[in-house]
Amino acid sequence: MVNKVWLHHNSWDEVAEYLKRSQVIIIPVGSIEQHGEHLPLGTDTMVAEAIAQSVAEQAGVLTAPAVSYGWSPHHMVLPGTVTIRPEVLIEYLYDVIESLAQHGFKKFLLLNGHRIVNISWMQIAGERAKRKLAVDVLVADPAYLSKELAKQEGMGLIGHADELETSHMLYVRGEFVQMEKARDFSHQRPDYKQVDPRVEKDTLCYVPSTKEEMGESVRAAGGTSGQPTRSSVEFGAKYHDWVVAKLVTIIKEWQISN
Amino acid sequence: MVNKVWLHHNSWDEVAEYLKRSQVIIIPVGSIEQHGEHLPLGTDTMVAEAIAQSVAEQAGVLTAPAVSYGWSPHHMVLPGTVTIRPEVLIEYLYDVIESLAQHGFKKFLLLNGHRIVNISWMQIAGERAKRKLAVDVLVADPAYLSKELAKQEGMGLIGHADELETSHMLYVRGEFVQMEKARDFSHQRPDYKQVDPRVEKDTLCYVPSTKEEMGESVRAAGGTSGQPTRSSVEFGAKYHDWVVAKLVTIIKEWQISN
Amino acid sequence: MVNKVWLHHNSWDEVAEYLKRSQVIIIPVGSIEQHGEHLPLGTDTMVAEAIAQSVAEQAGVLTAPAVSYGWSPHHMVLPGTVTIRPEVLIEYLYDVIESLAQHGFKKFLLLNGHRIVNISWMQIAGERAKRKLAVDVLVADPAYLSKELAKQEGMGLIGHADELETSHMLYVRGEFVQMEKARDFSHQRPDYKQVDPRVEKDTLCYVPSTKEEMGESVRAAGGTSGQPTRSSVEFGAKYHDWVVAKLVTIIKEWQISN
Amino acid sequence: MVNKVWLHHNSWDEVAEYLKRSQVIIIPVGSIEQHGEHLPLGTDTMVAEAIAQSVAEQAGVLTAPAVSYGWSPHHMVLPGTVTIRPEVLIEYLYDVIESLAQHGFKKFLLLNGHRIVNISWMQIAGERAKRKLAVDVLVADPAYLSKELAKQEGMGLIGHADELETSHMLYVRGEFVQMEKARDFSHQRPDYKQVDPRVEKDTLCYVPSTKEEMGESVRAAGGTSGQPTRSSVEFGAKYHDWVVAKLVTIIKEWQISN
Amino acid sequence: MVNKVWLHHNSWDEVAEYLKRSQVIIIPVGSIEQHGEHLPLGTDTMVAEAIAQSVAEQAGVLTAPAVSYGWSPHHMVLPGTVTIRPEVLIEYLYDVIESLAQHGFKKFLLLNGHRIVNISWMQIAGERAKRKLAVDVLVADPAYLSKELAKQEGMGLIGHADELETSHMLYVRGEFVQMEKARDFSHQRPDYKQVDPRVEKDTLCYVPSTKEEMGESVRAAGGTSGQPTRSSVEFGAKYHDWVVAKLVTIIKEWQISN
Amino acid sequence: MVNKVWLHHNSWDEVAEYLKRSQVIIIPVGSIEQHGEHLPLGTDTMVAEAIAQSVAEQAGVLTAPAVSYGWSPHHMVLPGTVTIRPEVLIEYLYDVIESLAQHGFKKFLLLNGHRIVNISWMQIAGERAKRKLAVDVLVADPAYLSKELAKQEGMGLIGHADELETSHMLYVRGEFVQMEKARDFSHQRPDYKQVDPRVEKDTLCYVPSTKEEMGESVRAAGGTSGQPTRSSVEFGAKYHDWVVAKLVTIIKEWQISN
Repeated sequence: MVNKVWLHHNSWDEVAEYLKRSQVIIIPVGSIEQHGEHLPLGTDTMVAEAIAQSVAEQAGVLTAPAVSYGWSPHHMVLPGTVTIRPEVLIEYLYDVIESLAQHGFKKFLLLNGHRIVNISWMQIAGERAKRKLAVDVLVADPAYLSKELAKQEGMGLIGHADELETSHMLYVRGEFVQMEKARDFSHQRPDYKQVDPRVEKDTLCYVPSTKEEMGESVRAAGGTSGQPTRSSVEFGAKYHDWVVAKLVTIIKEWQISN
Repeated sequence: MVNKVWLHHNSWDEVAEYLKRSQVIIIPVGSIEQHGEHLPLGTDTMVAEAIAQSVAEQAGVLTAPAVSYGWSPHHMVLPGTVTIRPEVLIEYLYDVIESLAQHGFKKFLLLNGHRIVNISWMQIAGERAKRKLAVDVLVADPAYLSKELAKQEGMGLIGHADELETSHMLYVRGEFVQMEKARDFSHQRPDYKQVDPRVEKDTLCYVPSTKEEMGESVRAAGGTSGQPTRSSVEFGAKYHDWVVAKLVTIIKEWQISN
Repeated sequence: MVNKVWLHHNSWDEVAEYLKRSQVIIIPVGSIEQHGEHLPLGTDTMVAEAIAQSVAEQAGVLTAPAVSYGWSPHHMVLPGTVTIRPEVLIEYLYDVIESLAQHGFKKFLLLNGHRIVNISWMQIAGERAKRKLAVDVLVADPAYLSKELAKQEGMGLIGHADELETSHMLYVRGEFVQMEKARDFSHQRPDYKQVDPRVEKDTLCYVPSTKEEMGESVRAAGGTSGQPTRSSVEFGAKYHDWVVAKLVTIIKEWQISN
Repeated sequence: MVNKVWLHHNSWDEVAEYLKRSQVIIIPVGSIEQHGEHLPLGTDTMVAEAIAQSVAEQAGVLTAPAVSYGWSPHHMVLPGTVTIRPEVLIEYLYDVIESLAQHGFKKFLLLNGHRIVNISWMQIAGERAKRKLAVDVLVADPAYLSKELAKQEGMGLIGHADELETSHMLYVRGEFVQMEKARDFSHQRPDYKQVDPRVEKDTLCYVPSTKEEMGESVRAAGGTSGQPTRSSVEFGAKYHDWVVAKLVTIIKEWQISN
Repeated sequence: MVNKVWLHHNSWDEVAEYLKRSQVIIIPVGSIEQHGEHLPLGTDTMVAEAIAQSVAEQAGVLTAPAVSYGWSPHHMVLPGTVTIRPEVLIEYLYDVIESLAQHGFKKFLLLNGHRIVNISWMQIAGERAKRKLAVDVLVADPAYLSKELAKQEGMGLIGHADELETSHMLYVRGEFVQMEKARDFSHQRPDYKQVDPRVEKDTLCYVPSTKEEMGESVRAAGGTSGQPTRSSVEFGAKYHDWVVAKLVTIIKEWQISN
Repeated sequence: MVNKVWLHHNSWDEVAEYLKRSQVIIIPVGSIEQHGEHLPLGTDTMVAEAIAQSVAEQAGVLTAPAVSYGWSPHHMVLPGTVTIRPEVLIEYLYDVIESLAQHGFKKFLLLNGHRIVNISWMQIAGERAKRKLAVDVLVADPAYLSKELAKQEGMGLIGHADELETSHMLYVRGEFVQMEKARDFSHQRPDYKQVDPRVEKDTLCYVPSTKEEMGESVRAAGGTSGQPTRSSVEFGAKYHDWVVAKLVTIIKEWQISN
């Protein structure tokens, strides 16, 4: 159970040792929000933690505990969802980085498990940290890190609690998936309203939906958008390994830069 | 000179008349930041205004005056650049929307002229407005709205004060372009650090550079990144018309939705 | 069209040249608010820009682009008006000053086009800038800079969209004035509620009206207070030149102080 | 010692009784700042309290306890001065008003004892209260309420710890005045930098000085500006009674308005 | 009436003298809130001032004027009460400390007269001051400083406007106490909801009540909780002297520490 | 591994079911801070989670995921510690409560695992939630909930990473304790500086230490204060069960109140 890649599993002297050989730390960021009836509310945080842990193990770096609660205004339409104002999240995450920077950490990988939605405020926190603390900050999101894989596999566009997310959960936290409750739903919208970074057509930029706009997906499939019934643990493993490998490569390159 | 598509060119009774037939308004958002030695500091605001005006004319809607100053921390490396904290910009833009919503405007197109960079805080302001004011908000950015054109034309990736931006300025504000001072520079970076939404490879997410990271472009080409010397007014016209046509279509569809 | 007194019409290297000979910059501040049926919503920003441009030309200094949206809670009674919370405007204007101070600007003339109303928050931003950035800040308002002229000309007290403002617009942006729609209205209030700085009687201090308090002027004259029908381009010219000359003198004196 | 015009000298049931006959309350606002060597640091708060008490007694209304600490950045040059950020004071004063409005108070007289300087943030707090709480707010300042008297008496322009302020203190809190330490100093500045509301010439707007700008007055006269040695208790009495009478008249008129 | 232990009774040069021999200053913090029908709304501020003055006189140190308005959300149930948001109070008190620290004060005793309730935000302001200003800050509260006395005297648990508080007021501001209006009331609640720091049983932590939760005490005894009818000036004197003696000892020890 | 007492282990429809029978939810709050060389940085969060889980299981209620990062300015003296500004934590926790209140949760138990330190900002968040959201909020802290046990067992006063905390960790997360690295240290301080709520003597109120004040404990025992070497799993079990039993009783009583 003790896994020394997690900052909070270490005592301070172990962190002091670590800082002699590396200044990298991952900060996973998730959300607590509805993921249909077949996935748990903690899905985004769980996948952020799972990716962070694998990357940390393979790259030999530390990961901080997750920022569990994120920005989920649209999913407030269903119970259990928690949303924090993005202006508060910016300050909260900035303080995590600032504290760690005081101890000598210099390279921060902010890792979003809540595809797309958290990115905006993480960018703002990350820019401020770079500028004011003289540290380097990378922001990573699985949707951006698996464009090639999704294309290669012929995946549909990003939905919610969809095939990709469900497969991933089957692989990393299979005990939390209730496949029998999965329901498919294909959200129809104009091309220019697509938010998947893979879309090659012209698009508008992402703005989270209102609760009213979520209504159709709620009524049709209990908050799901996409085809979770097609999920498989094999695809989840491939996806997980793909994203992890990308990040491990990026970190290794980063470690040897000055 | 008087152009009634601009909100501030109208008297209040003219706006009252407009509100009887449409609830749409465009809010252009720009920046005051260095654009190499061949483009003016106001480039981003000027292009936001130029697109807003053309769209407003063709779609028969109003446009508010631009939010001139944006978020430009990275360009503070060169004089004349102004950067506003994104947390301030969120409040400022939100208040513009809230004021107009009080008068009965219900559909807001936030139009960024400062490719990519302003998007994060505009998303946050836009989401809050949708949720708290019961209005609809779209966020548009030329880089996202011209992915197809750029591919079709074989354009290189987004730089700064590059061929695309310079061509656009040649077309909409040619008198401000000093082509003789344009210098090309090809910023080398790993694929995963590309920020152009057209990139089909896996990438990290955008975080503005530090002043140090801007140093290479400053030293090599006075802050330019890309190939402005290849610019042409013809391409500028094609690009302008493309983006404008997209937005006119979107607005027309939106007008007839409930 | 290109006018190099405007910061945003310059490229960064031109600003670098300017900073070798002067550290002065003007920042015009306006508002978007109803100005009766005969003047456009952008009146305050237009007059701030017009004065700024003339002063900059005659004094040989730069002017930044205007902060277009100001504090106009009372005029929210009529459509098209936009009001930003003063606590947001303080931060926004402070960031403009701070950015420019980083580049070496040291003397800031904050120029209000929105007579009286913006002054309070501009003072607060100005004081903070002086103290934290070691720059000098002057706050100028046409109503305070034309007390002698108004007395000499036997002008009535400051109203809204009144003879003075209308005359000024006739001179600087005549194409925006619809004289045929001008309506006079004399707002009766006790002496101690006058807000014109020319009043020699004892007064209370200015606090913006509520929408209810604006009702009488709205019903009587479409938001006007004063005698716009008496306006003339000649008086507008005299007023403009008077205020400009005052500011040019102040800047010249300031330029040679250390 | 117990004086029932002071809110805090009453028990809650006595306030409940008062609210049956009046909805007016005065809120005095002062400062803790250097006032030369002959006046105490609490001068501004003491004079605000003295005027508030006299007005309350004569008009038969309540006065809340003073907001003792104000905005005094310029006087930080000498020890004992305390300055609160104006953005904090806005919130603090707003909360006082909001609390009292919850109990049924509807007419607030904000009374500044710290001539000129506090006005800007009091205006901002007052406007917000009017708009959000549906109450009426007046902002009063002795310098604005004694323009006629000062002219009639041939007083010099407002200084600091000057003849006017010292005379007033001699009358209301004579035991705190150390006349033997009073020193005169005539601060020379161009007409357009005068901040006294009586000035009939064209002026800029007030912005508090920096500590450096205060240096001359500090070195010449221990922080004094003006002619305190000419002070007299008689003039203090005349000034006090003048300002009090004005405010009593205003309140009586206000009481009978709806 | 002039008492030189009060900062605001001194002129700045007298404070300069003081700073040569001591860097200690007391900041009393009170509240304006209902205290039953027999005590005035200003009770908490009055007792904070009374303790501060006695401690200052006996320890030979200065005390700043009180922060009069505190955090009293629960007492908003009865008229006259004022409550400031704790996040505003943190900033306000921090600015008082920061200003004084600029002049050379280094040891701040924050003295609460509003038993228990203000402590949380005072701790937060105090910690920030210690960390950012390199000063020392102590937070004192009479309920914590008289645990031994209360036990020795067999006092009941802390109520509101109770025997302890009423006795104290009888001693320090007897003229404000209307004993004939005092009413006893024994608030019944489970042991674990007691907030008196003397309670030796297991408890939850204090959270201020809602107005609804205050209703019983309001209906039963006009906002009183405890046994004010048993109050005596003798016990008030004993209590006052006890708390003062504790604080004088603490200050003396502190004065000689580096 | 799946434990349905945790909110984030449930899907939204399971939460909807829960809300039909209970409106209670626990929110554990911890910290990431140094705990000597023998305990992990995540100790406070782990114990908050352990208590929350046991209480939830026994009382049949839900617990939200922990707020992992808390307020730990004093422990920044040793690497790995993270501290969030309390004003940010107030907003973050408030948003968690507000989100859950929107879904119908009405009774919130805020459970601190970071003995004493987090209480102040939790109180402020809790009060605001009660007042603005019409929910009930209890704040619980193990140090306050085990006063009787500690007395009965003859425990020394609260230290840091001490016998109590170490025993607790041995019981709930034994695999994280490195007993061989435990070092004892007895922090000497005057009685009035004790912060343990069990102290019956008169005390000041708690204010977190500066890094300098932590130096002695760091040098003497690697950040420990107390006698961890005396820890035992048996005592940890007794302590855990004691606190859990108290909270279960409180919740059951609360469940049946209206």
